[in-house]
Amino acid sequence: MALSKKPVTGMKDILPEEMQIRDYVISVIKETYGRFGFTSIEAPCVENIANLSNRQGGENEKLIFKILKRGEKLNVEAAETEEDVVDSGLRYDLTVPLVRFYSNNAAQLPTPFKALQMGNVWRAERPQRGRYRQFMQCDIDILGEASNLAEIELILATTTTLGKLGFKNFQIRINERRILKAMAAYSGFPEESYDGVFITLDKMDKIGLEGVEKELLEDGFEKGCVDKYLSLFKGLSEAKDGVRYLAETLGEFLEPEVEQSLQEIIASVRATKSSDFEIVFDATLVRGMSYYTGTIFEIAMPEFGGSCGGGGRYDKMVGKFTGSDVPACGFSIGFERIILLLMESGFKVPVRPKQVAYLIEKGVGGDELCGVIAKAQKARQDGTKVLVARMNKNKKFQKEQLIKEGYEEFEEFYKNPLKQ
Amino acid sequence: MALSKKPVTGMKDILPEEMQIRDYVISVIKETYGRFGFTSIEAPCVENIANLSNRQGGENEKLIFKILKRGEKLNVEAAETEEDVVDSGLRYDLTVPLVRFYSNNAAQLPTPFKALQMGNVWRAERPQRGRYRQFMQCDIDILGEASNLAEIELILATTTTLGKLGFKNFQIRINERRILKAMAAYSGFPEESYDGVFITLDKMDKIGLEGVEKELLEDGFEKGCVDKYLSLFKGLSEAKDGVRYLAETLGEFLEPEVEQSLQEIIASVRATKSSDFEIVFDATLVRGMSYYTGTIFEIAMPEFGGSCGGGGRYDKMVGKFTGSDVPACGFSIGFERIILLLMESGFKVPVRPKQVAYLIEKGVGGDELCGVIAKAQKARQDGTKVLVARMNKNKKFQKEQLIKEGYEEFEEFYKNPLKQ
Repeated sequence: MALSKKPVTGMKDILPEEMQIRDYVISVIKETYGRFGFTSIEAPCVENIANLSNRQGGENEKLIFKILKRGEKLNVEAAETEEDVVDSGLRYDLTVPLVRFYSNNAAQLPTPFKALQMGNVWRAERPQRGRYRQFMQCDIDILGEASNLAEIELILATTTTLGKLGFKNFQIRINERRILKAMAAYSGFPEESYDGVFITLDKMDKIGLEGVEKELLEDGFEKGCVDKYLSLFKGLSEAKDGVRYLAETLGEFLEPEVEQSLQEIIASVRATKSSDFEIVFDATLVRGMSYYTGTIFEIAMPEFGGSCGGGGRYDKMVGKFTGSDVPACGFSIGFERIILLLMESGFKVPVRPKQVAYLIEKGVGGDELCGVIAKAQKARQDGTKVLVARMNKNKKFQKEQLIKEGYEEFEEFYKNPLKQ
Repeated sequence: MALSKKPVTGMKDILPEEMQIRDYVISVIKETYGRFGFTSIEAPCVENIANLSNRQGGENEKLIFKILKRGEKLNVEAAETEEDVVDSGLRYDLTVPLVRFYSNNAAQLPTPFKALQMGNVWRAERPQRGRYRQFMQCDIDILGEASNLAEIELILATTTTLGKLGFKNFQIRINERRILKAMAAYSGFPEESYDGVFITLDKMDKIGLEGVEKELLEDGFEKGCVDKYLSLFKGLSEAKDGVRYLAETLGEFLEPEVEQSLQEIIASVRATKSSDFEIVFDATLVRGMSYYTGTIFEIAMPEFGGSCGGGGRYDKMVGKFTGSDVPACGFSIGFERIILLLMESGFKVPVRPKQVAYLIEKGVGGDELCGVIAKAQKARQDGTKVLVARMNKNKKFQKEQLIKEGYEEFEEFYKNPLKQ
């Protein structure tokens, strides 16, 4: 088989310029989340195939990179289906591995457990500009905290981090799965069709109120239901306080606790936020994953159509592994989109050490070489970044390239010092 | 299929305590290598199967986690061999991906190119204590530098990093593939049997001179050859300067350039090193990978039987991808062994921010909750790590656990302040 210079389809090589920004963003994320009491953990990138195919991951389960069995367990010739040859796969998100991790290690973890994960995930999506099949995710999760303190802390930690990276004027949109359900119930949709209704609702920002109406009617829902549903959104657009309006209108369809908790989250975040953003209630926010049970939220950036991260509460997922539920809530930053936005804005990593390049003529060796290296070692100890390199034939071009890499000073060393 | 709480066979969950040390070591590595002018890059974890199976990776190629084709390209029922169902695999080291990366991106990279890679690799080895099927590697490589400046800088950068992590009294063992070959040629072994001879030689530290003699004779080599070969090692054990002794003894079997370069590396490193280690010539050092063409080296730690990292020159590998050779030399730190040694020595991460925990009684909400969170936000801005958590029923136990996590101060917030 011929060797291939290209990365595998849909994945990319990350060059030094981008890596410098990624490393910087990672350090800001780790430091800021650390201040909020989140501790780093790591689960393997490979998970048992049963854990990945448990119908919690929605569409993502169709996109799994599956791993072949090995040794005696593998018999390709006799195999009839994928299940016969596969025992594991690459994770498609960090939530399923986190919940497995927590179920496996709960006895050694504090309560509540505040986890920070940064790691690659893989999805075999159709390749398209700006989306890759391997990408970094950055999740914080709080397990064991039933109260909305979890939501408040997750939103503050995430927005503080975004603020430190220089993002402004963004929005946190927040909603509740129980509000979504109450709105559908109030309108008279049959319970088994909720997920279909929400899929249509999710398109509101693209197709508008009329588009949603049209699609719901086309899907065969009763006009009475659809009208009642749409009247809620019309009412919302005129209401000063959307959550209050819905609580009043939905009446007994919505538990009072839902309104109170959501109001408290919004008020607390507004009162204590340390960066420049708005938190707004958005009754059209759906989020795809079927594992969410309560609050859901999303980051909307003005510079970027679509979401730059999101999360929510998933109180029923640990129970699938252990048999007993543990309250859980998480927030995932769209790491790759953040990097893309920073790259496009010409972002430069702040504070870097002084960069000096020592260029040594080819013939210089022995004691002279030692002298140059000793000098470099001293400067490095003092905090300077020193590149020691042989002088290229085209010294002018070499220096131009080094200037592009950020080297600001040069020293040259010749075999015959008179040349200097 | 039932969900599994355990990680997949042979891989492990990394708990907060270990992650704290890993994150610290990663930051020291990135900073120190940065000072030497190495820049971070990243290649995908998945590589085309042809690149992984090119016979450069030795035994590791048998241990590849292979990835199933997807969609229309996959037909399990009709498949007869692994090749029919597989298109890619997880990398087993960082060298093959680096060389592919360089071949793909050379036009955008400086010359010489000094790369730092930190990332996971996967090998389906038989599970055993302390060895895992997913583990982190940390490699520095210099591409495009033909002179021994590459070796000197790689060894200095690696040893400076180890020094900063507190390691002392370790050894860098160094040898040359061309010396290995010259010794075998001088002794009269047939060229096609060199690799077999080296496999036996590699066991010297375990089976001793007599063991090597016995094994070579059992392998059917002529007594004359074996005697001549062993006389070299006996001579070495008495020689003051092993490299000089071999150059004199091997005569025309060894190019003079090899001795000169090796002496220069050893002398330069001794003269300019900034941490507490020895560099020694070791004619029994072999290193397994067949891609090495020149210098080879290894880290030996007194606390640890076996190698804690190693590397060497591989001048012929880029040519396999591009058709024209580029000089290349790399050094890989045994990251997981470093972490193991630090954990076992009770290593504590230096300099950490002050850790304070705010414990809030369950009923506290609304404005009171806002007040506590605002206070936490202020302290975080000032650099303190603040955990805001609900008070557990067993407050004493909760505090004990938090003290174990490093929290040194506590503040408690009650609904009825009189309780305080």
